[in-house]
Amino acid sequence: MIENRVDGTLDAMATLEPKRKSIAGAPRVVGITGPPGAGKSTFVNLIIKEARGRGERVVVLAVDPSSPFTGGAILADRIRMEEHALDEGVFIRSLSSRGHLGGLSRAVGQVVDLVDSAGWDLIIVETVGVGQSELAVCEIADTAVVILTPESGDAVQAMKAGLLEIADLFVVNKSDRAGADILIRELELAVELDEESRWRPPVVKASALSGEGVSEVVCEIIRHGDWCEGEGRQEWADRQGRGRVRTFLDLVGEDARFAAYCSLQSERSDIKEALESGNSNPYRLAAEYKS
Amino acid sequence: MIENRVDGTLDAMATLEPKRKSIAGAPRVVGITGPPGAGKSTFVNLIIKEARGRGERVVVLAVDPSSPFTGGAILADRIRMEEHALDEGVFIRSLSSRGHLGGLSRAVGQVVDLVDSAGWDLIIVETVGVGQSELAVCEIADTAVVILTPESGDAVQAMKAGLLEIADLFVVNKSDRAGADILIRELELAVELDEESRWRPPVVKASALSGEGVSEVVCEIIRHGDWCEGEGRQEWADRQGRGRVRTFLDLVGEDARFAAYCSLQSERSDIKEALESGNSNPYRLAAEYKS
Repeated sequence: MIENRVDGTLDAMATLEPKRKSIAGAPRVVGITGPPGAGKSTFVNLIIKEARGRGERVVVLAVDPSSPFTGGAILADRIRMEEHALDEGVFIRSLSSRGHLGGLSRAVGQVVDLVDSAGWDLIIVETVGVGQSELAVCEIADTAVVILTPESGDAVQAMKAGLLEIADLFVVNKSDRAGADILIRELELAVELDEESRWRPPVVKASALSGEGVSEVVCEIIRHGDWCEGEGRQEWADRQGRGRVRTFLDLVGEDARFAAYCSLQSERSDIKEALESGNSNPYRLAAEYKS
Repeated sequence: MIENRVDGTLDAMATLEPKRKSIAGAPRVVGITGPPGAGKSTFVNLIIKEARGRGERVVVLAVDPSSPFTGGAILADRIRMEEHALDEGVFIRSLSSRGHLGGLSRAVGQVVDLVDSAGWDLIIVETVGVGQSELAVCEIADTAVVILTPESGDAVQAMKAGLLEIADLFVVNKSDRAGADILIRELELAVELDEESRWRPPVVKASALSGEGVSEVVCEIIRHGDWCEGEGRQEWADRQGRGRVRTFLDLVGEDARFAAYCSLQSERSDIKEALESGNSNPYRLAAEYKS
């Protein structure tokens, strides 16, 4: 219903009782992002295994931005996660954007809220680093993990500020490759210079291939979760609050857009005709429609 | 005003007289997209030069999706375009997304409409291939150029359908590299199998380094523009019409979102407090706000 924007979805969502009002008893939401090929799925698999070992039930939401340039990588990831396919304690679902009716991050946020109410323990949101969507997904998460490789070094250079804002944990994967130590040092320096936030994102050197640093990544995710429940409780609550305001505003905006879309199919087909024939300025028509 | 969503933007835009109602005398909009490192800026530079040679005035809108992973590449591109910096017939502007108040493609579409009214001859919209934004930008364009390299071969494999829908012209750049001929053959086959569209997107083998195929790219862009004015006039008009409907709906939705945002800062601060404190379900509040 959420993906297809079925009529009545909003009313159904209004009946839910989200558990994430307080962190106690609520599912933990971990966001995993990074460029294609950084090894995101490897770490998702490891986090699943660790959580299953503790008896937690896990949902994985894989965000597919429907890019013609990254589609292949995501398909491959799904196949790799099949080892959990028969485990009833693991639910894996891909979310893709369908056309232009509402953004992808809206759908992800709503599905997280839905799964929240259904009583799962851990929600992992995996997204390929492709622009705005990974930023939005990090905002939904309690703990945002950014996975990089030495190859992405110079891009990081240029955008340190942006990365710092979204990450609670950096992982430098494929650490056997040239440039890994430089990238780690750059990230650590940037983290130290950021005086605003009370949580200092750790930078973990890892190699999913050799196993180096892999358990450390899982430990740091747990440590950040503990911080959210304790010392960082206010920061966590503020982030959740901002997320709820954004959800509210998105719903109001998209509802108005959808109502206009329906109106153009029926009583205001005159506007649709004017727009399609080109004898009109859409800005003028929107201003008139509004009033 | 458009980027910052200044109050009154919509009213100002409503006073414009867009020339793109009919293609005659209107600026041509060329969209250039492809993965990072595919050589987009090289071709943008060549298209600028060719158009300047014919005395046309050119606008370049570089769409920066503010991704932490692609930012570096875009900065480098800007530097490369500096050779046109002193030419008053060339206007280069980066557009980035600012926060969550409205999507990037909305801003691009509005800037294109603005520049249209200002009487430029050619508008080039360059975007890094990063998910939804490049699809939206291709829809804004009259002629959508997708630049690939042999390295992107398998991604293309997976998403042929998506690429075919958006491209009017494929360029396989870095054609000296292994896999170029396979990629070209795959694209040509996919183009032939697509029976729906009357325009068959040509696949140009190019090497920006050696100069191979470069002038052919410019020729094919011009040829597609001619097709839009002649045989393909109805397809072109339909695409423009769909774009105006989308613009209208986006405006209505974002206006409602913005009005709700303002309301939460003043008369309905009670809703904002409820959302921030977490004692509420945003779906329920949105449903109530609506009615």
